[in-house]
Amino acid sequence: MNKNYIVPNEWNIIEEGFDAENVTSSESIFSLGNGAMGQRANFEEKYSGDTFQGSYIGGIYYPDKTRVGWWKNGYPEYFAKVLNAPNWIGIRVIIGQTELDLNHCKVTDFKRVLNMKEGFLQRSFKAELSSGDQIKVEVIRFLSLDINEVGAIKYTVTPLNFDGEITFIPYIDAGIVNEDSNYDEFFWEIENIREGKDEAFILSKTLKTGFYVSTGMKMAFSLNDIEIPLESEIQKEEKSIAYTYKSFVKKNDSFTIYKFGGYTQSMNYPKEELLFASQKALQKAVIIGFDNLLEKQKLAWEKIWDTADIVIEGDLLGQQAIRFNIFQLNQTYNGEDARLNIGPKGFTGEKYGGSTYWDTEAYCIPFYMSTKHKEVAKNLLVYRYNHLQKAIENAAKLGFSDGAALYPMVTMNGEECHNEWEITFEEIHRNGSMIYAIYNYVNYTGDYSYIPEYGMEVMIGVSRFWHQRANLSTEKNKYVILGVTGPNEYENNVNNNWYTNYIAKWCIDYTIENIDKLKKEFKSDFDRILAKTNLKEEEIKSWKEVADKMYFPYDEKREIYLQQDGFLDKHLLTVDKLPKSERPINQKWSWDRILRSPYIKQADVLQGIYFFENHFDLDTIEKHFNYYEPFTVHESSLSPCVHSILAAKINRIEKAYEMYLRTSRLDLDDYNHEVHEGLHITSMAGTWLSVVQGFGGMRNFDNQLCFDPQIPEKWTSYSFKINYRGGTLKIQKGHKSCEFFNESDQPIDIYVSGQKITIPASGSANV
Amino acid sequence: MNKNYIVPNEWNIIEEGFDAENVTSSESIFSLGNGAMGQRANFEEKYSGDTFQGSYIGGIYYPDKTRVGWWKNGYPEYFAKVLNAPNWIGIRVIIGQTELDLNHCKVTDFKRVLNMKEGFLQRSFKAELSSGDQIKVEVIRFLSLDINEVGAIKYTVTPLNFDGEITFIPYIDAGIVNEDSNYDEFFWEIENIREGKDEAFILSKTLKTGFYVSTGMKMAFSLNDIEIPLESEIQKEEKSIAYTYKSFVKKNDSFTIYKFGGYTQSMNYPKEELLFASQKALQKAVIIGFDNLLEKQKLAWEKIWDTADIVIEGDLLGQQAIRFNIFQLNQTYNGEDARLNIGPKGFTGEKYGGSTYWDTEAYCIPFYMSTKHKEVAKNLLVYRYNHLQKAIENAAKLGFSDGAALYPMVTMNGEECHNEWEITFEEIHRNGSMIYAIYNYVNYTGDYSYIPEYGMEVMIGVSRFWHQRANLSTEKNKYVILGVTGPNEYENNVNNNWYTNYIAKWCIDYTIENIDKLKKEFKSDFDRILAKTNLKEEEIKSWKEVADKMYFPYDEKREIYLQQDGFLDKHLLTVDKLPKSERPINQKWSWDRILRSPYIKQADVLQGIYFFENHFDLDTIEKHFNYYEPFTVHESSLSPCVHSILAAKINRIEKAYEMYLRTSRLDLDDYNHEVHEGLHITSMAGTWLSVVQGFGGMRNFDNQLCFDPQIPEKWTSYSFKINYRGGTLKIQKGHKSCEFFNESDQPIDIYVSGQKITIPASGSANV
Repeated sequence: MNKNYIVPNEWNIIEEGFDAENVTSSESIFSLGNGAMGQRANFEEKYSGDTFQGSYIGGIYYPDKTRVGWWKNGYPEYFAKVLNAPNWIGIRVIIGQTELDLNHCKVTDFKRVLNMKEGFLQRSFKAELSSGDQIKVEVIRFLSLDINEVGAIKYTVTPLNFDGEITFIPYIDAGIVNEDSNYDEFFWEIENIREGKDEAFILSKTLKTGFYVSTGMKMAFSLNDIEIPLESEIQKEEKSIAYTYKSFVKKNDSFTIYKFGGYTQSMNYPKEELLFASQKALQKAVIIGFDNLLEKQKLAWEKIWDTADIVIEGDLLGQQAIRFNIFQLNQTYNGEDARLNIGPKGFTGEKYGGSTYWDTEAYCIPFYMSTKHKEVAKNLLVYRYNHLQKAIENAAKLGFSDGAALYPMVTMNGEECHNEWEITFEEIHRNGSMIYAIYNYVNYTGDYSYIPEYGMEVMIGVSRFWHQRANLSTEKNKYVILGVTGPNEYENNVNNNWYTNYIAKWCIDYTIENIDKLKKEFKSDFDRILAKTNLKEEEIKSWKEVADKMYFPYDEKREIYLQQDGFLDKHLLTVDKLPKSERPINQKWSWDRILRSPYIKQADVLQGIYFFENHFDLDTIEKHFNYYEPFTVHESSLSPCVHSILAAKINRIEKAYEMYLRTSRLDLDDYNHEVHEGLHITSMAGTWLSVVQGFGGMRNFDNQLCFDPQIPEKWTSYSFKINYRGGTLKIQKGHKSCEFFNESDQPIDIYVSGQKITIPASGSANV
Repeated sequence: MNKNYIVPNEWNIIEEGFDAENVTSSESIFSLGNGAMGQRANFEEKYSGDTFQGSYIGGIYYPDKTRVGWWKNGYPEYFAKVLNAPNWIGIRVIIGQTELDLNHCKVTDFKRVLNMKEGFLQRSFKAELSSGDQIKVEVIRFLSLDINEVGAIKYTVTPLNFDGEITFIPYIDAGIVNEDSNYDEFFWEIENIREGKDEAFILSKTLKTGFYVSTGMKMAFSLNDIEIPLESEIQKEEKSIAYTYKSFVKKNDSFTIYKFGGYTQSMNYPKEELLFASQKALQKAVIIGFDNLLEKQKLAWEKIWDTADIVIEGDLLGQQAIRFNIFQLNQTYNGEDARLNIGPKGFTGEKYGGSTYWDTEAYCIPFYMSTKHKEVAKNLLVYRYNHLQKAIENAAKLGFSDGAALYPMVTMNGEECHNEWEITFEEIHRNGSMIYAIYNYVNYTGDYSYIPEYGMEVMIGVSRFWHQRANLSTEKNKYVILGVTGPNEYENNVNNNWYTNYIAKWCIDYTIENIDKLKKEFKSDFDRILAKTNLKEEEIKSWKEVADKMYFPYDEKREIYLQQDGFLDKHLLTVDKLPKSERPINQKWSWDRILRSPYIKQADVLQGIYFFENHFDLDTIEKHFNYYEPFTVHESSLSPCVHSILAAKINRIEKAYEMYLRTSRLDLDDYNHEVHEGLHITSMAGTWLSVVQGFGGMRNFDNQLCFDPQIPEKWTSYSFKINYRGGTLKIQKGHKSCEFFNESDQPIDIYVSGQKITIPASGSANV
C-alpha cells in the first residue's frame, strides 16, 4: 500500500495530525538541505518513538572496509559510507518536571509544513503532558543558502493551562552512529569540546578519512518576542555538550529559544581554524538575526524558482510533486562546490554509500543544464575529468592497460567505493554515460570547446576500455561483450547486453568523429592530447574494427533488440500477471528468483532507445516500448521517468501521465515502500525530464532544440522555462494552445513538431 | 614455483634441515588428526617466526554473520567458521635464562618425520642458543585413535655442552583467535579454569553456538627415561594456565616431559561433566603410559592400512604421495561419528568454513565405501537424509515449495552456511550429487534397502527441486535451467550449464525408475513414503515432462556438449598459450577477467562425462576430453583426479600419470601455492580414485564390478585392495601381469576389459 497522508498543496508539503507510524517517512520527506549540508526532519525535542536520526555534510564519508566470504582479485577496498554527522538541532524541552516527548503525550493540532517556495520547515502542535500541563509549540527551521555553514531554529513554547517553569536544554551530540551500519563501528573521534557564553563547539574527526568538522551552536531567547538574557548550566560529557536554561513562564506567554548551529569542515579550512570559523559563522548569523536570515532565504529561493519552476494547472497532486522534486534537487546540489556531486539520497538518508553514480550524467546534468548557468553542468563534467587518472587506475586493477579508463560505479573521490563484483566489475555501461553527458552538454550549450579542453581525454580513455573489453567471437565473427550487468540490475553477468554494446559502439564512433574534428579544427589541442595519451592511428583503427563489428542480439520475429543473449528463454509472464502480494519483487522474492525472471528493474533496452532516440524510427521505438515495458517492475526510482518520456513520444499520453505520477510522487506517496530510508534524489531530475522532455517533447540532438508539446487530459495547462545558450525560453502549453516566450535579447531557433520557428528576442510565438 | 623439500620415502613424510620459509607449509603437511580432533604441526616450544597456529575439534564451529554491502532476500544468515580451539600442545622450554625459539638460535640436524605407517609425528634437532648452550631436542607427538579425546607428547631435551637448569612450562591457552577471521572477533568465552597436581583444565564455550569444550593437560617427567617427580609453580591468567617445572640437568643427560592433552566437548557429554570427563580421559592415558599408547596407535593404523593401502613399485614419489593422501583422509574422518563429515581442510586449516560440501558425495564416498565397512559410507548418506527437512527449508527460503529440497553448498548441521549468492543460490548441481551418491552406494554395495528406507525421500525432494527450477523456454520448446554456477566456479550465473541440466534430468529419471520399483517390490515402504511426501501421479508426470524435454547446449560442428550457452563466444585461447607469469589465474587475474575467460577451474562437462561414463561411447569421451582439458587450469584441488581417470579411460596414460602426480602431490609439492593454508583433504579421495578408477579402471555401473587395468610406464607394479559386498579383493598389476586375489569366502564376479571372470573364494585369477 502506498501512503497518502501528505496534504495536496501547490507550494507546500503538509502533514496534518500526528501519527507515529509516519514519523520516519516524514523525517525523509521534510528533509532540509543547502547544498553543503542537510538533515532529516528529526524533531528538535526528545522523541522516544521510532525515528531515524540523520545529519549529513557534503563530501564527508567513511571508507568501510570491504569484507566478503571469499576475496577475489580486483575487489574494491572499501564501501564509502555516507556519515551521520554530529547532531546540532537537539533541544530538550522540560515543562515543570516533565520532558516533552511526542511519543508520551496527547498531541493535537499537529501540523508540519515544508515551505518549498521560501525554503523553510515549520511545525506546530499542542501537547498535553502526563502532568496535565498543556502547551503549544511552534518551530521554524531552515538551513541558510546565504551562509551555508549555518542553520537556524526558532522554537517557541506557550503554556496553555498553567504558569510554570520551562526548561530548554539545547545541545550538540557527536556521539552518533549510522543507522545502516553493518559493522557497529564508531566513525567519529572527539578532538575538542569548547564552551562559551551561550555557545559551544565540538571539534571531531572522522576515523580513517581524517575529515575534521566543527559543529557549533549559539543560543538566544525571547519572551513574547522580546529578547531576554538567561543564565545557563553546562553539562559537558565525553562526546556531547548541553546547556540548561530555565524560565518561569506565565500562561499564554510565549517562550522562545533561537538556536543557530551548523558545521565548518576541513575541506574548506585548515583544521586549526575550524573552531574559530564555526564561531564566526554563527556570530554572523546571530548578528543578522533569525528573521532577516529567513528573509534572505526567501529571496534566494525566489531566484532559484525563477527558472526552475514548473507550473501545472488543473492537477494539484502533480503540481505539488514536481515542485517537491525541483526543491529537493536544489537542496542537494546547487553547483557552488565543484568537489561535490549529487548523492542518490542527497542529505536525506544513508543508504547507497558514496556521492556520485551514473545518475549524474544520465539524469541530472540535463536538469542543471537547463535550470542553471551552464557552468554548473560544466562543473559536473569537469568533476569526472578530474577523476580520469583514478578511472585509469581502476581499470588497471581489473587488468586493463594503456590508459583504458573505467569510471567507478560509485565514488566520493574518483576511487571505486561500491563493493559487489556483479556491479563494480560488470555494470560497465556507466562508462558510456560519461561520454553521453559530454555529447549532451556540447549539443545543448553549443560550448564545443569542452571537448578539446577536457572531454577528449576522457573519451579516449573510455574508448580504450571498450576496445579492450570486447572480444572477437570467432563463432559469430562479431565483437561481443561478455559478463556484464546492464542498467537493469535484476540481471547479473549476462552476455551482450544490448544497451552496453550499443553505447560502447557509440562511444568509439563519437570519439573517432571528434578526433577527426580536432585534427582539423583544434590542431594544437589535438597535438597536446596525442602526446599526452600516446594515441596512434593504428590504435584508432583497431577501435573502429570493434565498433564496426559489434554484435547486437536481435529477434527477427518480434523485430526487437534483445536485452541480452538468451532473454527469450525466460518464463515470459508479463508483470500484470503477477499477484500483487508478490510485489515489489525485491522485497518478496529471493535474489535467485529475480535473476531468472524476465522482470526489469529499470529501463535497459529502453534506456538506449531514449538516449539514442534519433537513431530509431517511431515504429521501432513503439515496438520496443510495447515489448519491454510490460516486463518492467519499476523498482528503481530511475525507471518511471524514462518510460514516461518514451510513452509521451509514442503518443501514449495516459501511460506517460501514470508514469509521471509515479516518478514525481514516488517519495510523497511511497510507491516502493522505502521512503523512510530517505528520498530518491537523482531520480527527481528524471521527473523534471518527464515534463520537459516527456510532455514538452524537448530534444536537443544535432544542435537543434526541438519540442513536440503534448498535455495530459487532466491538466489545464503547464509551463516551464529553460536556460538555453545564454537566453531563457518559456513554454506555456494548454490543450488548445502552445506559446513560447523568448526572454533573451537574441532570437532563438526551435523546431516544433519538425517545423522550424524563430522566436524573436523578447518575443513570443504561438504554435 | 612448486616446492620440493619433502624427502621422498615410501612410508614417511620427511623434512630435513630447518628453513623458516617452510614452517607454515610444514605445519599443514605434518598435521595430525584422529577423526575427532586434529591440529597443525605447530611447534610445542615458542616460535616467534611466521607460523599459523591451529587446533580443531570435529563439529565445533562459529556462525559468522553474513555481512554484505547490499542484502538480498534469501541470503544465508551466516558463514560457518571452522574454529581454532584452545592450544593444549604448548610447552615453553627455557635453557638457563634463555628461551628456546628456533627463530632465534642456530639449528642443525633438524628433521621432521610424519610416520604414516604408525601414525605419529617425530621431530629432532640440535640448537645453539644465544647463550652458547647447545642442546638436542627430540619430540614425538600423536593423537590417539584409541582414546580419541587424548593426544600425547614426549619432549626430550639433552644438554650437549653444559650442565644447567632446564625449565619446561607446559600450558593451555584458550585465548586463541582465528587466522582467517574477517571480523577480528573472539569466539571463545572462558567458563572455568581448574588446576590440580600436574594437571589443569580450561572449560570454555563458543559464542553464539554455545559449544562447551574442556581442554586438559597432564604432565609427567623423566630423567634418562627414569620417571621423576617435580614441583611446579602455577601461573593462572584470564584465559590460560601454565605450570613451571625446573630441573638441573647434566651434560648428555636426557630430560623429558610427557604431556598428555586434548578435548572433551558438549556434543558428547552434558556440560557439567566435561571437566571430569577430561580429567578421566587423561588419567586413563597416563595409566596406559606413553609407550603403550603409542603401541596401540601403531596397531590401529596397521588395521587401517590393511585394506586402505596402495602399493606402488618403481615410483617413490608416487608411492609416498598416495599413502599421504590415504593417511590424511583417515586422520580426518573414520566413520565413527555419524554427526561428523569430511571438511575440505580437515583438521589442517581454517579456510572454507563448514564441514560438508558436495565433495563428500562426489569424491569421498567411493573411497570410504571401498576401504572401510559399508556402514561408514551409509553413515555419510544418512547424514544427508537427516538434513532433508533443513534442505526443504533452504529451498523454501528461495521461493521453492511443496517439499522441494535444496541441499546446502556448505553445512555444519544441515543449514546453508556459505554466503555468496553466486554459489549458494546458483551452484545447485550439488543437489544432483546427493542422488548420485545413493546410486553409487546401492550399485556398489548391493544394499538396495537404502532406497526404500531412506534414499527415496531425498530423491523426491531433489526431483521436486529440479522440476521447479527448470522452466519452459517457449522459444526452444525445451526446458532450460537459467542462472546457475556449474562445478567450474570460474563461471557464475550462466544459462544451461550442461552438467547441471544433465544431472537434473538424470535425477528425475532415476527417481521415477525407483518409484516404479518401490511400487512393485516395496509396497509398504512405497505407501509410507507416498503418504509422507504427498506425492501424486500427476506430479510425477510433470517431472517426466521436464526430464524428457530438457535442453542441452550442443555444438554440431565440434560434436561436443557446450559447458553452457554462449561458451563459444569466448576468446578461446588454450591454457598452454597463457604466459606462466599469469598463473595461477586466481592469484594473478581479476575476477572480472576470469569470468569472461574460457578457463575452467575444475572438471565441469567432464565431471558429467565421468559420472555418467556408461552413457557415452569412447569417441564421445575422447572428443570432450580433448576439447575441454586444454582450457582447464586445474586450480581446484578436485580437478586433476577426474582428468586423470578420464585420461586413463581414453588410453592417454602419460597424461593420466601427469594428472596423478598433480593430484597426489598437490599439497606435498604445493602446486597451487597455498599449502600453508591447510591441506586439500576431500580431493585426496580423488587421488585414491585416480589409481583405483584411473589406472585400475574400476567401475561399478549396473551392479557390475569392472576393471580395465593399465599401468604408467614408470611404475613397475601397483596393487590395491577393495572391500566389495562383504569380501575383499586385491588387485596386483604389473606391466605384463595382472592378478586378482579374492580374500573372501564367496566367489566374486568381475569384468576385466569387458570379459566376465569369476574369482573363486580365497582364490585368484591371472588375467
